[in-house]
Amino acid sequence: MKRVAVVGGRGFVGGELLRLLVHHPGVEVTAVTSDTQAGKAVESAHPPLRGSGLRYSRRADLEPADLVFLAGVHGSTAKILDETTALAPKIVDLTADFRIEDGALMERYYGWRREGEHARAFVRGLPELHRKQITDANRVAVPGCMATSAILSLAPLAARGLLQEVQIDARTGSSGSGASSGPANSHALRSGVLRVFAPFDHRHEAEVVEALGVGTSMTVTATPQVRGVQTVTKVAVGEVSERELLAMYREDYAAEPFVRLVNSPRGTYRYPDPKVLLGSNHCDVGIVADHRGRALVMGALDNLMKGAAGGAVQCMNLMLGLPETCGLTFPGLHPV
Amino acid sequence: MKRVAVVGGRGFVGGELLRLLVHHPGVEVTAVTSDTQAGKAVESAHPPLRGSGLRYSRRADLEPADLVFLAGVHGSTAKILDETTALAPKIVDLTADFRIEDGALMERYYGWRREGEHARAFVRGLPELHRKQITDANRVAVPGCMATSAILSLAPLAARGLLQEVQIDARTGSSGSGASSGPANSHALRSGVLRVFAPFDHRHEAEVVEALGVGTSMTVTATPQVRGVQTVTKVAVGEVSERELLAMYREDYAAEPFVRLVNSPRGTYRYPDPKVLLGSNHCDVGIVADHRGRALVMGALDNLMKGAAGGAVQCMNLMLGLPETCGLTFPGLHPV
Amino acid sequence: MKRVAVVGGRGFVGGELLRLLVHHPGVEVTAVTSDTQAGKAVESAHPPLRGSGLRYSRRADLEPADLVFLAGVHGSTAKILDETTALAPKIVDLTADFRIEDGALMERYYGWRREGEHARAFVRGLPELHRKQITDANRVAVPGCMATSAILSLAPLAARGLLQEVQIDARTGSSGSGASSGPANSHALRSGVLRVFAPFDHRHEAEVVEALGVGTSMTVTATPQVRGVQTVTKVAVGEVSERELLAMYREDYAAEPFVRLVNSPRGTYRYPDPKVLLGSNHCDVGIVADHRGRALVMGALDNLMKGAAGGAVQCMNLMLGLPETCGLTFPGLHPV
Amino acid sequence: MKRVAVVGGRGFVGGELLRLLVHHPGVEVTAVTSDTQAGKAVESAHPPLRGSGLRYSRRADLEPADLVFLAGVHGSTAKILDETTALAPKIVDLTADFRIEDGALMERYYGWRREGEHARAFVRGLPELHRKQITDANRVAVPGCMATSAILSLAPLAARGLLQEVQIDARTGSSGSGASSGPANSHALRSGVLRVFAPFDHRHEAEVVEALGVGTSMTVTATPQVRGVQTVTKVAVGEVSERELLAMYREDYAAEPFVRLVNSPRGTYRYPDPKVLLGSNHCDVGIVADHRGRALVMGALDNLMKGAAGGAVQCMNLMLGLPETCGLTFPGLHPV
Repeated sequence: MKRVAVVGGRGFVGGELLRLLVHHPGVEVTAVTSDTQAGKAVESAHPPLRGSGLRYSRRADLEPADLVFLAGVHGSTAKILDETTALAPKIVDLTADFRIEDGALMERYYGWRREGEHARAFVRGLPELHRKQITDANRVAVPGCMATSAILSLAPLAARGLLQEVQIDARTGSSGSGASSGPANSHALRSGVLRVFAPFDHRHEAEVVEALGVGTSMTVTATPQVRGVQTVTKVAVGEVSERELLAMYREDYAAEPFVRLVNSPRGTYRYPDPKVLLGSNHCDVGIVADHRGRALVMGALDNLMKGAAGGAVQCMNLMLGLPETCGLTFPGLHPV
Repeated sequence: MKRVAVVGGRGFVGGELLRLLVHHPGVEVTAVTSDTQAGKAVESAHPPLRGSGLRYSRRADLEPADLVFLAGVHGSTAKILDETTALAPKIVDLTADFRIEDGALMERYYGWRREGEHARAFVRGLPELHRKQITDANRVAVPGCMATSAILSLAPLAARGLLQEVQIDARTGSSGSGASSGPANSHALRSGVLRVFAPFDHRHEAEVVEALGVGTSMTVTATPQVRGVQTVTKVAVGEVSERELLAMYREDYAAEPFVRLVNSPRGTYRYPDPKVLLGSNHCDVGIVADHRGRALVMGALDNLMKGAAGGAVQCMNLMLGLPETCGLTFPGLHPV
Repeated sequence: MKRVAVVGGRGFVGGELLRLLVHHPGVEVTAVTSDTQAGKAVESAHPPLRGSGLRYSRRADLEPADLVFLAGVHGSTAKILDETTALAPKIVDLTADFRIEDGALMERYYGWRREGEHARAFVRGLPELHRKQITDANRVAVPGCMATSAILSLAPLAARGLLQEVQIDARTGSSGSGASSGPANSHALRSGVLRVFAPFDHRHEAEVVEALGVGTSMTVTATPQVRGVQTVTKVAVGEVSERELLAMYREDYAAEPFVRLVNSPRGTYRYPDPKVLLGSNHCDVGIVADHRGRALVMGALDNLMKGAAGGAVQCMNLMLGLPETCGLTFPGLHPV
Repeated sequence: MKRVAVVGGRGFVGGELLRLLVHHPGVEVTAVTSDTQAGKAVESAHPPLRGSGLRYSRRADLEPADLVFLAGVHGSTAKILDETTALAPKIVDLTADFRIEDGALMERYYGWRREGEHARAFVRGLPELHRKQITDANRVAVPGCMATSAILSLAPLAARGLLQEVQIDARTGSSGSGASSGPANSHALRSGVLRVFAPFDHRHEAEVVEALGVGTSMTVTATPQVRGVQTVTKVAVGEVSERELLAMYREDYAAEPFVRLVNSPRGTYRYPDPKVLLGSNHCDVGIVADHRGRALVMGALDNLMKGAAGGAVQCMNLMLGLPETCGLTFPGLHPV
């Protein structure tokens, strides 16, 4: 049994991560920190952990572990990276701090720049693109939820030089904002919205740009679900037929345990929809051509799973030499 | 045109009140105060007021008016009652401060007691029970939303001495909690709940006890809607038949503009449901007998309308000599 | 009082229309037909009509009126147009039958073609673009809900030849599908979806193409609300600045009673969102430039109001010589 | 590996059951029948089964198995019981056909009566009350979802003769009605309801009466969630203190794997709420005393899990000699 700890276990991502780790057969959770909740039962914040007996401790009391997850607020990882490195040989970061390697890109989207050496030390936590590097890495940064959907759904086109005029429309549920995000995220004001909160220049766009090596324009709308992210992308693909496009996706993803091509000519479940992925670690992808040189590329995932905690555990499995799908086989709950 | 002002126009009740008043043909809104928002456009908080041109002012700058609505947080009215009285001959209070007349009852449910003279100065703002007094009153306290549903649905039985073993089950949407009510009310945590947050002794119970003169036990559950309150009450009615019960309700409410008896033997809309009352000032009531000496009494309303702002405008109409239904005839939006 | 009748008053659009007409000061509803519901109270299908006393009659029993609304299923208008014309000098059609004038376009999107003379006899029911023609018309066809949002939000650009590379992303709530639309639209399966049900070639696209005279690609996603439509369009505008774009919209829409430019630099309500338009006849539009030659154009409306019944009443007002906003001033209910 | 088959695998309960069985380490699904879907992929109806390769077959083609689940519509089990018995030594029934043993009770609530011998042959599928009998049984009838919540939450009181004046308020989400249940259950009409659809005499009441041996009155309200059932019961308990009541529950349920006592003095998650049980096989129970001789007893569960498919698998585990919790340890997804 490997020993793992979670720093910042109070938020939704932390709760999801703990749910996965507590039921994971290959690891033992040695500590969960939250400076504001220290001493309290973890189940008081996360009901799925009822009966786990876990209690929050202070970060200062953290002891050595085989791997530490950093799931605090954005900006916190950069501050505690050195201390954490001293305690654990391997780190999986769930904040945005080290998702971007390119300093100029980071500065443009985030308004600040990290020291280059640290940035380069983190591998992007997408096993589908970087399995080998993650397996060997000591530091992995899990990408943003919308970036994960966009990147995985577009990677087969990028790999073949087919990404032209990329327009990403991203939609996100409320759990991406956390529980303490103010009046605009209150139930009364957030229910039923189609709130375009980032017409351009959302930070996840930077990750897509860097990962795919292509310019893009991403618009983000807050939609009424709690969980779930979807990206719907229009792209110019020229003369390539839908059949050929589907073949590319099958070729790239046939062996992937967590990416499925969803493209049914009829029925209720024709294209990727996060509705059917609740609790699942899958990213469903789909592509349709319009016979006029354009394709619609869709990606969907559970933002707390494949878009955060599930993706993090998938990386952990690789980093600790465990089977990649270990603890991640829940197929999704439907209907909810 | 009568001149009216709203003190505390930042919350949901204030917004609803302003929506009604701005479109009301008999009054003019002379001021809306919010000390934290002073100077800002009211429409920045309440989109239905787009184009109204209203701006928040400070309470200290309030000028004389014919009637002032007090829609601040609970506890605020007691503090500013004297000053407000100096500015306006008539006051409609939407806080809980003066809903209870009986000092002991107030102390038991609220933990504090008001000076007796002030308490007696407020008439309970339920025109269906106190139309004459409201018409003549200078001070009216609008009852709580769940209390309004419970009182109106049970009053015909109370008037006939038929209220025995009263068990009230109240359900309430999230808009009753305001936009700034913390993580438990965030969209992610409040969506889909059936959260029993007051198993016993909710404050609105005190109003029911005082208004109907009967002991009761009220349980409150937070349900997943934004708007809407429903009370479902079981009561022992003995030998009285459903037919007789219905006749009592018809007798009492036939002439009421905002209370409807809803009791259909079949169809989708058989009993009172707040779902069909969004934006309406109606309180729908219904009663069914179980042939074993018990009846189920249902009440439903839009908590921001008949349960707060709509009820307040109805009282204002009476107090200012305007037609009672003026500005309140919107029939409800359905489906939403 | 003008006499109006509604053919096909069983569905959601019919219910909304009746709610508006019953409270409209300038008209009297002389008949509501539904062959399957004949004899039943209209309020059994539409609770907001409680107390109206209206009953469904058969279409065969329809008597002459000043204006008839045709709100049956798509395809029904073409069948009864001649008979209806014999009964009423003016017709407002809410089905899709006569929305498209161009026969080839109709055939491509609908698979059938109408006789040309009939098609040319209908004016597109968008007062913002065709006020004069509607005022003089005997036959008006109300556009589709998503088409209305797209057309109104893009018209200022079209008028200035600035529509290039138009990619429309349309989102629609469940009330657009009617109450009897099968398992995929059941509450359990429709809740929380982001269901891309028309990746390309949705029929409303044909209306946009014809109205704006520009090719476009529209994708439609079913989103989790009951009411509400939003279109989010990316368009290449070249060198034009956001300031100039906003000025164009202000110029075109400043005098329009039901189109508002919504574009706030901060706050919860920055761009058009149907969430704040429930029950309102407004179409909110907004535009943002990305400094890279593209703009994001947003439109939002209540699909049963401005997108159907409200738009129809607006046209009726013009056709009958009534004030255009008569019966349509409800500002929207918020929050719901 | 035991061989199990599912008869009637098209509905929500069938889908949930298949999800559990496909991932269950001790059984193999040999057939899923649906006469209307024969030949189609099961994943076309149930997306969580993507990749399972299962196809629907006809019931007539069913081959022998160790255990058969009957998950068809209510009334179907009685018709096929003999044939099914010939194919499998053990049957778990998820319909309502054999939930009631008492013929008179069955007749009163269902309007029909079964032959006595068959009724007596089924054991009530509640391991918490009948573990030994289920382990030895060949036929088990899984109770209704609301009945399960009511019975489990009240059993400790019933066992001690403390059930007096029992008033059950039951709330249920839309998945209990199936996907093909007509317009009233369409998304537009079912969203946001508080629809009292059974003021008295709901069929699940009969199960509570028989299981607890006490008269009761149960009211059922359709609430806006997709999944989840809650029962909130008021009961006269006389002089017993809350402390003593809690001790009774702890005593009875301490060793139960799927019943938890939830009763926190503070926090967001104080009492049983189905919101936190999505996908879990737990039934959470809670009890609060009001110091006036009454207690409020709450039960909550996921109606497709502990209230149907999960409960059925728990019974199967006992009947086939497998560990009782096998395949049922998912702790619930939260927030959703």
